[in-house]
Amino acid sequence: MGLDSDIRKIPEHLLDSDDPLYAFNKVIVDATAPYCVAYKPNLAFYESMGVQGWLALEKTVAYIRQRYPQQFIIADAKRGDIGSTSEMYAHTFFDTMKVDAVTLAPYMGEDSVKPFLRYPDRWVILLALTSNKGADDFQLVEDREGEPLFEKVLRRSQQWASADQMMYVVGATHGRMLEVVRRIVPDHFLLVPGVGAQGGSLEEVCRYGMNSRCGLLVNSSRNILYARGGEDFADAAAEEARMLQLEMKSMLERYLK
Amino acid sequence: MGLDSDIRKIPEHLLDSDDPLYAFNKVIVDATAPYCVAYKPNLAFYESMGVQGWLALEKTVAYIRQRYPQQFIIADAKRGDIGSTSEMYAHTFFDTMKVDAVTLAPYMGEDSVKPFLRYPDRWVILLALTSNKGADDFQLVEDREGEPLFEKVLRRSQQWASADQMMYVVGATHGRMLEVVRRIVPDHFLLVPGVGAQGGSLEEVCRYGMNSRCGLLVNSSRNILYARGGEDFADAAAEEARMLQLEMKSMLERYLK
Repeated sequence: MGLDSDIRKIPEHLLDSDDPLYAFNKVIVDATAPYCVAYKPNLAFYESMGVQGWLALEKTVAYIRQRYPQQFIIADAKRGDIGSTSEMYAHTFFDTMKVDAVTLAPYMGEDSVKPFLRYPDRWVILLALTSNKGADDFQLVEDREGEPLFEKVLRRSQQWASADQMMYVVGATHGRMLEVVRRIVPDHFLLVPGVGAQGGSLEEVCRYGMNSRCGLLVNSSRNILYARGGEDFADAAAEEARMLQLEMKSMLERYLK
Repeated sequence: MGLDSDIRKIPEHLLDSDDPLYAFNKVIVDATAPYCVAYKPNLAFYESMGVQGWLALEKTVAYIRQRYPQQFIIADAKRGDIGSTSEMYAHTFFDTMKVDAVTLAPYMGEDSVKPFLRYPDRWVILLALTSNKGADDFQLVEDREGEPLFEKVLRRSQQWASADQMMYVVGATHGRMLEVVRRIVPDHFLLVPGVGAQGGSLEEVCRYGMNSRCGLLVNSSRNILYARGGEDFADAAAEEARMLQLEMKSMLERYLK
């Protein structure tokens, strides 16, 4: 469940509360917790509100931790910097904010990722093949041997950590290419955005991407968060989440290997 | 001047103040402003302190804006996400925080960068060839025609914006490769980290990287910030900054084309 909580899109009646983003998230979390396994706040939406946004984010994480301790929390931050800076980011997300996982960009290579792997019970989720159009610009560029960049990222980063500490972002919009991904990383969990608003097919994702322990964290954000805009937004969000969970359940029955 | 202000490294006597990071930054900015043209806060160091860090960052940016309006301010954030998320990050840095430029990672391609280019008087500083060891992992991988990834990033991204809105990060640790970079982007400004603590040579950077309007923003952080740890840290920082500025001045006389 992606918490891309946008102050411009949340129901109007919440704007009067002290912390509208937190008020919105609490209701969304309560409504969707029965149907999901993880929450993924998108840092951009909180940072855009400065200090107030960070407060809302910290309170949201604490709320989920306290009320729904079985839920996994992913900071969707797409960070990546030199080692000494990555250490600070790792400290931010794992010590200060206490999330379970953080998304990282691979462009700066191994030493930009390593500091996050020093936390034994936390996860790095590395961008491999993203869901957006710009994924074509560099991720699909082939090297001399015909290996596209995203495959190189998958292969090389497996030397940095095992499937117990590393996952990959693979966009649902690439459908059948999940088959290629699975040949390289049969055991890793994949975080799959792009179902819903971005047009990816859940059926294709599961057909080509599921492994013996499912191995997929399929994300939905906007479709659920903004299912309806009025006072009953929670019911609509719960209903959307429930429907996606049901769909996922039927996919599990069909494709779990 | 890189503001990688680390709560664990600032002089002890500042830890008693209400906002130690801001207190440190104010003194550093006053001490170094005569010798530099830009400030580059490194977001990781502020985020690691949560809400308190964001406050220190906002206050630092406001302080520089008010006291030293001629200084250029760069948010070293290395962001990069799908279009709708990048819009939020652009809003954060350009509307909320009001900095002049932000560093971005190119992995997610054109639509992850475009939203930042809608702000006409602001700058994108795209990672090309970074100063760290991990730069070799993917940035130097050659495509079928032998073009390394960082060159592809330089070439392709020139179609997204002109030299009036785009700069590139090229690490000082690559020395002579700045010659290659200059063949591809003769007119762009380059943000050059890696002189000092990371071991890059200023002389090489200038010999191979300088163009007719200088075209280089050479960054130094740790060497200046932590030049001395006691109560007189400001004098030591000023002296380090002054020496680097003098060195840069002599380089300008020697290499300005």
